[in-house]
Amino acid sequence: MSYQLKKNMKVQITSDFWKRYRELVVNEVLPYQWSVMNDEADIKIAHEPGGNAQDSKNSHAIENLKIAAGIKKGNHFGYPFQDTDVYKWLEAAAYSFSYHPNDDLKKITDNLIDLIADAQDNDGYLSTFFQIDAPERKFKRLQQSHELYTMGHYIEAGVAYYQATGNQKSIDIAIKMADCIDHNFGIDEGQINGYDGHPEIELALTRLYEQTENEKYLKLAHYFLNQRGKNPEFFEQQNIVDGIENDLIDGMKYFEPKYYQSAEPIIDQKTADGHAVRVVYLCAGMANVARMLNDMELLEACHRFWNDIVQKRMYITGGIGSTNIGEAFTYDYDLPNDTMYGETCASVGMAFFAQNMKDIEFKGEYGDVLEKELFNGTLSGMSLDGKHFFYVNPLEADPDITKNNPSRSHAITQRADWFGCACCPSNVARLIASVDKYIYNVKDNTILSDQFIANKTIFNQGIKIEQSNNFPWTGDINYKVENEKNIDFKFGIRIPGWSQDKFTLNVNGVENKNLVDGIVYVDITDINTKIELKLNMDVKLMQANPLVKYDFGKVSVQKGPVVFCTEETDNESPIWTYQLNTSGSITSQFERKLLGGVETITATAIKNPISDTTLYREYNKIKGVETELKFIPYYAWANRENGQMQVWQNISN
Amino acid sequence: MSYQLKKNMKVQITSDFWKRYRELVVNEVLPYQWSVMNDEADIKIAHEPGGNAQDSKNSHAIENLKIAAGIKKGNHFGYPFQDTDVYKWLEAAAYSFSYHPNDDLKKITDNLIDLIADAQDNDGYLSTFFQIDAPERKFKRLQQSHELYTMGHYIEAGVAYYQATGNQKSIDIAIKMADCIDHNFGIDEGQINGYDGHPEIELALTRLYEQTENEKYLKLAHYFLNQRGKNPEFFEQQNIVDGIENDLIDGMKYFEPKYYQSAEPIIDQKTADGHAVRVVYLCAGMANVARMLNDMELLEACHRFWNDIVQKRMYITGGIGSTNIGEAFTYDYDLPNDTMYGETCASVGMAFFAQNMKDIEFKGEYGDVLEKELFNGTLSGMSLDGKHFFYVNPLEADPDITKNNPSRSHAITQRADWFGCACCPSNVARLIASVDKYIYNVKDNTILSDQFIANKTIFNQGIKIEQSNNFPWTGDINYKVENEKNIDFKFGIRIPGWSQDKFTLNVNGVENKNLVDGIVYVDITDINTKIELKLNMDVKLMQANPLVKYDFGKVSVQKGPVVFCTEETDNESPIWTYQLNTSGSITSQFERKLLGGVETITATAIKNPISDTTLYREYNKIKGVETELKFIPYYAWANRENGQMQVWQNISN
Ligand SMILES: [Zn+2]
Ligand SMILES: [Zn+2]
Repeated sequence: MSYQLKKNMKVQITSDFWKRYRELVVNEVLPYQWSVMNDEADIKIAHEPGGNAQDSKNSHAIENLKIAAGIKKGNHFGYPFQDTDVYKWLEAAAYSFSYHPNDDLKKITDNLIDLIADAQDNDGYLSTFFQIDAPERKFKRLQQSHELYTMGHYIEAGVAYYQATGNQKSIDIAIKMADCIDHNFGIDEGQINGYDGHPEIELALTRLYEQTENEKYLKLAHYFLNQRGKNPEFFEQQNIVDGIENDLIDGMKYFEPKYYQSAEPIIDQKTADGHAVRVVYLCAGMANVARMLNDMELLEACHRFWNDIVQKRMYITGGIGSTNIGEAFTYDYDLPNDTMYGETCASVGMAFFAQNMKDIEFKGEYGDVLEKELFNGTLSGMSLDGKHFFYVNPLEADPDITKNNPSRSHAITQRADWFGCACCPSNVARLIASVDKYIYNVKDNTILSDQFIANKTIFNQGIKIEQSNNFPWTGDINYKVENEKNIDFKFGIRIPGWSQDKFTLNVNGVENKNLVDGIVYVDITDINTKIELKLNMDVKLMQANPLVKYDFGKVSVQKGPVVFCTEETDNESPIWTYQLNTSGSITSQFERKLLGGVETITATAIKNPISDTTLYREYNKIKGVETELKFIPYYAWANRENGQMQVWQNISN
Repeated sequence: MSYQLKKNMKVQITSDFWKRYRELVVNEVLPYQWSVMNDEADIKIAHEPGGNAQDSKNSHAIENLKIAAGIKKGNHFGYPFQDTDVYKWLEAAAYSFSYHPNDDLKKITDNLIDLIADAQDNDGYLSTFFQIDAPERKFKRLQQSHELYTMGHYIEAGVAYYQATGNQKSIDIAIKMADCIDHNFGIDEGQINGYDGHPEIELALTRLYEQTENEKYLKLAHYFLNQRGKNPEFFEQQNIVDGIENDLIDGMKYFEPKYYQSAEPIIDQKTADGHAVRVVYLCAGMANVARMLNDMELLEACHRFWNDIVQKRMYITGGIGSTNIGEAFTYDYDLPNDTMYGETCASVGMAFFAQNMKDIEFKGEYGDVLEKELFNGTLSGMSLDGKHFFYVNPLEADPDITKNNPSRSHAITQRADWFGCACCPSNVARLIASVDKYIYNVKDNTILSDQFIANKTIFNQGIKIEQSNNFPWTGDINYKVENEKNIDFKFGIRIPGWSQDKFTLNVNGVENKNLVDGIVYVDITDINTKIELKLNMDVKLMQANPLVKYDFGKVSVQKGPVVFCTEETDNESPIWTYQLNTSGSITSQFERKLLGGVETITATAIKNPISDTTLYREYNKIKGVETELKFIPYYAWANRENGQMQVWQNISN
C-alpha cells in the first residue's frame, strides 16, 4: 500500500544547497546547542522579545533533567517548558543519523535517553519544572503549564529516535508518557476534561499512533481536538483553583481564551486567531487526525485555517504572527513589517501544517507554502554559521529603531547566541535535518514530487527516482525515473505558483502542461523515463493586495521561491530612500563567495538625497540620482555588519 | 517698563474661531469636567494608553480633597497626582472670568479654594494621596510621587485665581506650599538634595515669583534645575530606602534616569529624551528661569532642547513623543505615525515652552511652533462638543487596528469621556481659556504681534491695537494701531514660516518686507497706523525630510497653519489606497455646517481598486480611477463616524 511505500522511501539528498545546511546541523548546530544546554558555552542569552527574559548565561536544560532524575540537587531553572529544547535537539540528532551516522553523537544521545528515562516518573509523567519545584501543581494550570506540550515534544523525539536507531527505551518512554496522559485526561470520572494551553500533543500522538498502530493514541488526539473550546472557561476555572495570581509565566492569566484557541470549538472557529505557533501546531495535528479518522469536520476546519492564514495573514516570506504582543495573529490583511513577530517556530509549524495537508490531498498550494517556508521564513531563523538565531523575523529592521524605539525593540537586527525561551533554535535544526521527508508524498498509486531538493530516492517495488537540479538558483529540474518492475503509477510534479505562467515539462521529449490543482501528472509506463522541467526563474517584482496597508505602493523582489531583501551593507543608508525603477533593468548573478554562495539581484533605482536639515518643507518632486539597488536572499540577512534591512521597496514610478 | 506693559495688557478676543472655543470652555467643558471630578457624570473611563488603567467610573478627585480636609472618610482613589485635575480645571476657570464673568462658577471656585485650604497641612504640604494613605512616605519616592508636580499645578492655579479674582486665600495656599517645598528641599543639612520625577514645580515657582516678587521662589526653581541629574542615582537611592518593590505607579522603578531627565545635568544634555511632557514642562520652566536670572547656560540648554525637538522630533501637527511605551521621545527623525504618542499635554507644554522662549527673544520660529500647536496638536485633544478627549494624537489611525492589533491599540479612534490618568482634558481647557495671553509679547520698546487671533487690545500709555482677521481660514490680517500719546515704539509682526515665500505687508499704504528672524518690524510714529498683511493661504503639499522613514514618498496637506487629514467618512475605505495627484487640482472651500464650520480641501487622486483576494501577485502598474480626495482640518477629526484617518498621503506621481 501507499503508506508502506512512503514509510520505506529512502531519500538521499544531493542538493548542494541543502547538503551545506544539513552538514552544518551535524558539524556546528548540534554540538553548539548541546554545549549550550549543558551550560558549557560561553554565550550571552538575549533579552528577547515579548519580555521573555532570563537573567542567566545558562540554559540549565540538561541540569533540570539531572535534578529530576535525582543525579543532581537544586531547583528548576528557566521556563516550565525548558525540557523541550532538549527533546527537539534530540529529534534533530535522530534525523541526522540518516544522512550522517555519527558514533560520538550517538553515544551522547543514548546516554540522554537513559537520563530522560531516569527523570521520568513511574506513572510516565515528565516535566522537570513540576517534578522538581511544584509536584502538587501537576496538570493544575494547563493554560500555561505546557506539560502536554513538553511531553508531546518528547514523544515526537522518542518516535524519531526509535525509527533512526531502534533504541527501545526511547519509544518506551514515549509510550509511558502517552499512557500517563491518556490516564489523566478524558471524560471519565476523575479525569481532567481539558487540554493543554499550547497545542502540540495532538501532533505527537498521531506520530506515536503511526509508529505503534495503537488506536488509543489517535483517539486521545481526537479527544483533545474535539474538547478544545467546548468549555471556554476551562483555563480560568483551573486558574481559580490553582490561585488566580500564581501565574507560572507572568501575565499569561490575562490572555483571553481566543489566544489559546479555546474560545469556541475548533470546528466553529472562523479565523486563525491567537498565538501563531499554537495555531499551526494545532492545525498540523488536526490535519493528521482528520486524515487518519477521515473526519470531514476537522478537515473543513483545516481548510478554513489554511485559507485564512495563507490568503490573508501571511507575510511574503512565509512569516506569520502580525504582532509582537503575544506573538500572535491579529486580523485579515494586517501585516505590518516592523511590529510583526514572524516567529521562526511559527514558520516551522506552518511547514508541518503544509506537509500534513499534502498527506491528505495533493494540491500545489501546500507545496508552494512549504517551499516558501523552507527557503525564507524558517532558514532566516539561523545564521550561516549555525550558532546564532532569530526568534522574530521582521521584514523591515533598523538597529537604531531596535535600540531607541521601545515600540519596535522586539525585532533584534543581529541573531542572538541563545534565548531564555529557546524554542526556535532546535526547531529549525530538526526541520533541516528532516527535510528529506518533505520532498515526496505518496498516496494510492501516485508519487508526488513536491519539493525541488535534488536527491536520489528508492521507493518500494523497485522504483527509483533521481532528481537533479541547482535549485533554488536555477530552474532546470531533471528527473530520471527507473521503474524496473514496470509498475503502473502516476508521477505528479508540483509546478510552483510562481512558475505557472511559464514552464515547460517534457516527458521523454513529449511536452505535458496539463495542470491539475497546480500539479502535472505523468503516467509512468516505461522502465526509464526522463523528465525535464524548466521553471520560470525570472526575477519578479511582487506587490501585495492593496488591503495590506503597510505594503501599499511598494514592491518586493522574488526569484523562484526566494524572497530578496536589501541590506544597508550593500547599499547606502538610509535604504528606504531608494526608489526601485519598476521599468528599469533587473539582473541576477550568483556570487560564490558571498554568504556561503547566493544569488544576488541588482535593480536600477533612484537614490534620493538627504540634502538639508528642514524637517518639513513644501513638496517638490525629488530629483534623485539614478543608481543601483542590490538585493540578497532574505534568509541570509544579518550575517554581515549590523544594519538596516527591508523586503518591501519604495518605487519611483 | 516693558514688563509692566505686558502685565497690564488687556486683550479682548474677537476671533470667531477662538470665541467659539472659549465659550465652549465656559458652557460645556468646565461644567462637564466639574461634574466628572465630583463623580456626578455618567461616564465611561477609558482604559487608556500606556496601561494607565483605573477600574472605576469615577474620578474621585474632589472626594480625595474632601477626605484630606477631614470632611469625608475613606481612602484615596486614583493616581497619586489625581489632585492636579482639579487644579488645572481651577486655573482654566480663573482664566475664563477674564472674558466671561460667571458668578455661579465663581461661587464654586471660591468654595473649592476653601476646600483646598482645608486639605492643606499646616506646614503647607498638599498631596492628598500621601496625606490620606501614606503620610510616612512624603517626599520619599520622588521619582514617581509627583508631589512637587502636584503642588506646582496648584501654585499655577492659585496665582491665576488670585490674578483673576483677588482671592487672597488662593495665593496664600500657593505661598505656603512653596515655603513648605523650600523648607524641605535644598543643600542644607536635613534637606532633600533632589527634585521631582516630573518637572512642573520650576515653571510654577517662576509664576509665583512674578506675582510675589519674592526671589526665594526663583532661587528654588533655579536650584531644582541645577540639581537635576547631578546625582543620577538620586531616584534609585530613594527607591531603595522606600523599598524597591513599593512602586507608587506600577513599573516606574524600571525607567532609566534618562526618562526623567536626570541622567546628567540638564546643561549637559544633548537631546530631548525621555517622557515628552516632562521634557517640555522642564523647558518651559527653564526658559523662565534663564530669562529672569539671565542664565546663559540654561538659555543654551533651552536652545538645544528646542532645536532638537523642532528640527528632529516633532510631528507636522506639533505632536511630540514618538513612542507609546513611556509616552516618550525616541531619537532624531524617528516619527512613526501610528505607534507614536503625541500626548495632548505634550503639545500644551510645547506651547508653554514656545511662549516662554518668546519672552526671552523675538524670533518667528517660536510663534510658528506655538501656532502649529494651537491649531493642530492641542485642539485635536478635545472634541467639538467639549466633552470627549484624546490622550494620544496619532497621525494615522484605523479602528480595526486599534481593536485588533495590540501593538497599536493605544491610539484610540474616538475621544473618550475621561481617563484614569486625566491630565489632558483640563490642560487643553486652560490653554484655550488663556489663549489671549499668547497673542502679543512686549519687550523693551517693542510689541510683537505673534499670533493671528483677532482681538482688541489696550496696552500701557494709551496704545491700542485692533487686529481683525478671519484666521485661520483666510490670510488678510488688518491692524489698526492707535498711539494717542505718540509714543515711539516698534511693532513687530511675525510672518509665519509657511508664508515667508509670499506675503505683502503695507503700513499706511507703504510696503515693508524686511524680515528679521521671521519678523517684520514697523516703526510706529503716527497716532493712527493702518497695517494690512496678506498671508499666503495657498493650499500646500508638504513633505518630510527623507530621513523620516515613515513619511517617505508621502505628502501632507496644509493651508496656513492648519494641517489637514483624510477621514474614512468623507472618502472610500481603505483610505490608504488613494494616491494624491501632486500635479492635479487642489481646491479649498469653507463649509459652514461641517464640524462647526471648517475649511475643507479637495484634491484629485487615484483610487486603487481592491479587485481580488490574492495576497501577493506579480507587480503591474495599478490602473486606478481618477477621483477626489477630501480633507478636513486635523484638529477636527474623529467628530463623526468612527473610521480611518491619515495625515500623510500616498501619491501617484
Ligand atoms: Zn520559537
Ligand atoms: Zn496628558
